Amino acid sequence: MEYPSKLLTQIVDEISKLPGIGKRTALRLALYLLKQPEEQSKDLSATILKFRSDVKQCKVCHNISDNEVCDICADSRRNHQLVCVVEDVRDVMAIESTGEYKGVFHVLGGKISPIEGIGPDDLTIEALLNRVENRSVDEVIFALSATVDGDTTNFYLFKKLSQLPVSPRISTIARGISVGEELQYADEITLARSILNRVPFEKSIKQH
Amino acid sequence: MEYPSKLLTQIVDEISKLPGIGKRTALRLALYLLKQPEEQSKDLSATILKFRSDVKQCKVCHNISDNEVCDICADSRRNHQLVCVVEDVRDVMAIESTGEYKGVFHVLGGKISPIEGIGPDDLTIEALLNRVENRSVDEVIFALSATVDGDTTNFYLFKKLSQLPVSPRISTIARGISVGEELQYADEITLARSILNRVPFEKSIKQH
Repeated sequence: MEYPSKLLTQIVDEISKLPGIGKRTALRLALYLLKQPEEQSKDLSATILKFRSDVKQCKVCHNISDNEVCDICADSRRNHQLVCVVEDVRDVMAIESTGEYKGVFHVLGGKISPIEGIGPDDLTIEALLNRVENRSVDEVIFALSATVDGDTTNFYLFKKLSQLPVSPRISTIARGISVGEELQYADEITLARSILNRVPFEKSIKQH
Repeated sequence: MEYPSKLLTQIVDEISKLPGIGKRTALRLALYLLKQPEEQSKDLSATILKFRSDVKQCKVCHNISDNEVCDICADSRRNHQLVCVVEDVRDVMAIESTGEYKGVFHVLGGKISPIEGIGPDDLTIEALLNRVENRSVDEVIFALSATVDGDTTNFYLFKKLSQLPVSPRISTIARGISVGEELQYADEITLARSILNRVPFEKSIKQH
């Protein structure tokens, strides 16, 4: 389709570079901005620019941060000997929102994926190994998604961590039936794991 | 959910002001920009700013344009005595993409909608009336969507145009069964209209 203006063509092209946004949605967004006060476009434009140029990666855990070291890593009340390995920032946010985790994180920045051409060197694995070695970490928790790539990454990390002079305890988050989920609708692998990894009943009561 | 960075909170807030984009999608887009070269964010930011500040409305037809007068209105080969009234830019693009229409347009900027608080003064109706009166327009085609608001707007325009000293012919685009559509799946109102507004068979052949 031909656009009636070069400026409109440009903005539609730029917006539709974003994932999950097609030309039609991009056009709708551009026309929306045109109906709103110019202030909104200015704010949006400035915020994008500032975000991309000023946002930092925490040099300890590689989480997104406004400072050199993120708020979690800078918090002395947290247990810095307990490190939870996650894929990206959204996983940190999800775990933080439970309010149950008192350790710190390590953001890998993705998973090892031969198909997508992502190898160990594209992730923050080297940094994790250095961190575990130099900061006397007791336990590393794997909290990657339960996919083929997630499992591959877990195995790779397990091997590397086990080869360290002093290797930490290594655990993974529990897989099982969601709280409130009915057994009959659970998939077989999850159900099987939840039986294999059953916990003492007294322990399950304490968690309430 | 709490974001690990103020800059991230800001960009998520700004992006999720756009219609149809929630906080979760906004977060996904922000993280995407972070993974892309900074150049992409700079381009996006600059394009939004430039679009909003530089794009113009054609002073004749109110279509979006890079200049004072849009390419369609500036084209002397088009029939300026034939004006098609549409709701917004996307309708102009849709009609232009057929390659069949040789007249010009008038972009209303919306429809009269008492529920949404849009009255005649919020649209470019006054400009249309002046245009018809001063530029000796022969025919005005209504091409608004067939909704209650569309019909309301059509009736209002019809009344106003009929009251002009020299009133133009007034027509609406044909409603009927889509080409390729099966009769049994058409809604009753459309089917009824397509029978009432039947065309001589010889005429329908010529259109192929």
